[in-house]
Amino acid sequence: MANPSILILPGDGIGPEVMAEVRKIIDWFGAKRGLTFDVSEDLVGGAAYDKHGTPLTDETMERAQEADAVLLGAVGGPKYDKLDFAVKPERGLLRLRKEMDLYANLRPAQCFDALADFSSLKKEVVAGLDIMIVRELTSGVYFGEPRGIFTEGNERVGINTQRYTESEIARVARSAFELAKRRSNKVCSMEKANVMESGILWREVVQKVRDEEYPDVELSHMYADAGAMQLTRWPKQFDVIVTDNLFGDLLSDLAAMLTGSLGMLPSASLGAPMKNGRPKALYEPVHGSAPDIAGQGKANPIACILSFAMALRYSFDQGDEADRLEAAVETVLADGLRTADLMGPEGGKPVSTSEMGDAIVKAL
Amino acid sequence: MANPSILILPGDGIGPEVMAEVRKIIDWFGAKRGLTFDVSEDLVGGAAYDKHGTPLTDETMERAQEADAVLLGAVGGPKYDKLDFAVKPERGLLRLRKEMDLYANLRPAQCFDALADFSSLKKEVVAGLDIMIVRELTSGVYFGEPRGIFTEGNERVGINTQRYTESEIARVARSAFELAKRRSNKVCSMEKANVMESGILWREVVQKVRDEEYPDVELSHMYADAGAMQLTRWPKQFDVIVTDNLFGDLLSDLAAMLTGSLGMLPSASLGAPMKNGRPKALYEPVHGSAPDIAGQGKANPIACILSFAMALRYSFDQGDEADRLEAAVETVLADGLRTADLMGPEGGKPVSTSEMGDAIVKAL
Ligand SMILES: CC(C)[C@H](C(=O)O)[C@@H](O)C(=O)O
Ligand SMILES: CC(C)[C@H](C(=O)O)[C@@H](O)C(=O)O
Repeated sequence: MANPSILILPGDGIGPEVMAEVRKIIDWFGAKRGLTFDVSEDLVGGAAYDKHGTPLTDETMERAQEADAVLLGAVGGPKYDKLDFAVKPERGLLRLRKEMDLYANLRPAQCFDALADFSSLKKEVVAGLDIMIVRELTSGVYFGEPRGIFTEGNERVGINTQRYTESEIARVARSAFELAKRRSNKVCSMEKANVMESGILWREVVQKVRDEEYPDVELSHMYADAGAMQLTRWPKQFDVIVTDNLFGDLLSDLAAMLTGSLGMLPSASLGAPMKNGRPKALYEPVHGSAPDIAGQGKANPIACILSFAMALRYSFDQGDEADRLEAAVETVLADGLRTADLMGPEGGKPVSTSEMGDAIVKAL
Repeated sequence: MANPSILILPGDGIGPEVMAEVRKIIDWFGAKRGLTFDVSEDLVGGAAYDKHGTPLTDETMERAQEADAVLLGAVGGPKYDKLDFAVKPERGLLRLRKEMDLYANLRPAQCFDALADFSSLKKEVVAGLDIMIVRELTSGVYFGEPRGIFTEGNERVGINTQRYTESEIARVARSAFELAKRRSNKVCSMEKANVMESGILWREVVQKVRDEEYPDVELSHMYADAGAMQLTRWPKQFDVIVTDNLFGDLLSDLAAMLTGSLGMLPSASLGAPMKNGRPKALYEPVHGSAPDIAGQGKANPIACILSFAMALRYSFDQGDEADRLEAAVETVLADGLRTADLMGPEGGKPVSTSEMGDAIVKAL
């Protein structure tokens, strides 16, 4: 049988640096655990635009469709701010999500014991925090039509369309309930059903999927504004949160920031199963391309490395190996190793991007 | 000259209780400072639905249009959850905002010294926090058409439309810049211009208003998800934030929760000047109707009382009297008076809703 394939898209800014560390990890799993992957690499975002005039070529799109898993670094940077909307780095990422139909974006917000002091929130509010936000990723206002800037009378109007079908809502709800079954059996769904009809349909469909298919899972509903408040006030009240694309964008970033260490947080974007049974999948760190520190060895590779751990778990059915990798990360943190972003008042041993990668390999 | 008029709409839940305390304050200003208002009262939300089958009658709408200022308590409650979208309590509030054309929603997020321990955030992150969120309130996805739940093929689809014209963006931007001139001359505008065309237009118009009309005000732009993060990480980096209706809903609630004391936060919703020069205006606390504690004397009336202070400042040009009222609130807090919601680990003197109102009158 052929090795499973991984397509690496390092992207822009610190993307290539952190991805270089992930390759060390992948190599280790090949050499020491007999988990060999066919790894190839390609361009996305500004890097692709610079070379091809588009943030994602059709060829790269095709390779992503065929890969067993895609690992992405980060896209974007000030250099591309003035580009046309249609060729901005972000469009490359959005095209991948849409055409691979990666409807379930899993964003864990987990507070690492060694880093609890890092949060802007009080330690007792975030210590031990472990929530999972499931964000719908292929529909809603990100993709709804009509959209654009039009002229109306003597002025322009900017239009986007929030749009959800029952089946789009149902499938991401199922992803959330499935996850809940493996966690604490509790889902909170967030929308603005008090203001938006799309929110009413969202609430109704999520409830129906729960009642008909997951009667044992506890489901609650919350308005998204109240959700933002409650995440800030007492995040540990939540376990799995399911929400739409736009609310999910804000709420998952908020949840990520609660932990205080963005450089630590991975994400998985999953679609329907392929012929081989594996889901279409793209893994990427939650942090951005951080152009201000790119190329200086300052970036924290852990979020990207933990994204590969998610790949082991969700694409390659290697939950134990994922646990092993996550444990190695905990070890180096407990040992006090800190990239610049993790350097807090209580100090630690400062390490560069590649030293951090090496240390994790060693801990493995 | 006739006295200026105030229409009081207590609404649902704790609305009537907190409004009763505001009336004591209004009476005090009449008796002691010669500021006499013609005060009348009417129904909104569930209370109006119970009596008239609609959350806002045309008659009440008309009275609101004619009032020099409207004070609203809160709307909504579980009792009305099953009602049709069109007659839900919230529709009453949304109709007031829309028909009075209250496009600029001012939401201060201020951390009171005596309550800094209350926040879930570290004291150094929130102590002294004083930011002002200016939320567009009459357009965007809250009101855009088409909207509704439609059948498409063999399933339903929920649709809402995000929609902003140049003039809608420009006028709320002006409100933000005007406020900034009286504060620290700094505005941050938030949208998702990397994903939404309406965000691109938003960014462009806000920048243009700044360049042409407020060249001295410092303007920055931030994606709304990054905004949610930065508000959580280090809110004091902001002074005035301007954003659209939906982002403003989430971000202002998030900002409010940073302070840890929702029961303290007022808001003003302002429209264009009327014939008498006063802006159309509605003032309301940021908190909701809190049906779980309604009628028990547990509610904190301060948010509603501070909303009246905003009315003194923005509708009646009585900035000094507003300062006086705000100082009285600080005094009772410094004296340790605490309604149930403000009762923290460090204790305090527990007071009921009406005792708090009385104490503030006394401090005046
Ligand atoms: C880069 C951007 C298009 C993207 C989004 O808005 O989805 C990012 O914020 C994210 O959350 O992955
Ligand atoms: C009650 C509701 C309709 C309202 C809104 O969404 O605007 C509330 O959340 C607010 O922020 O004033």
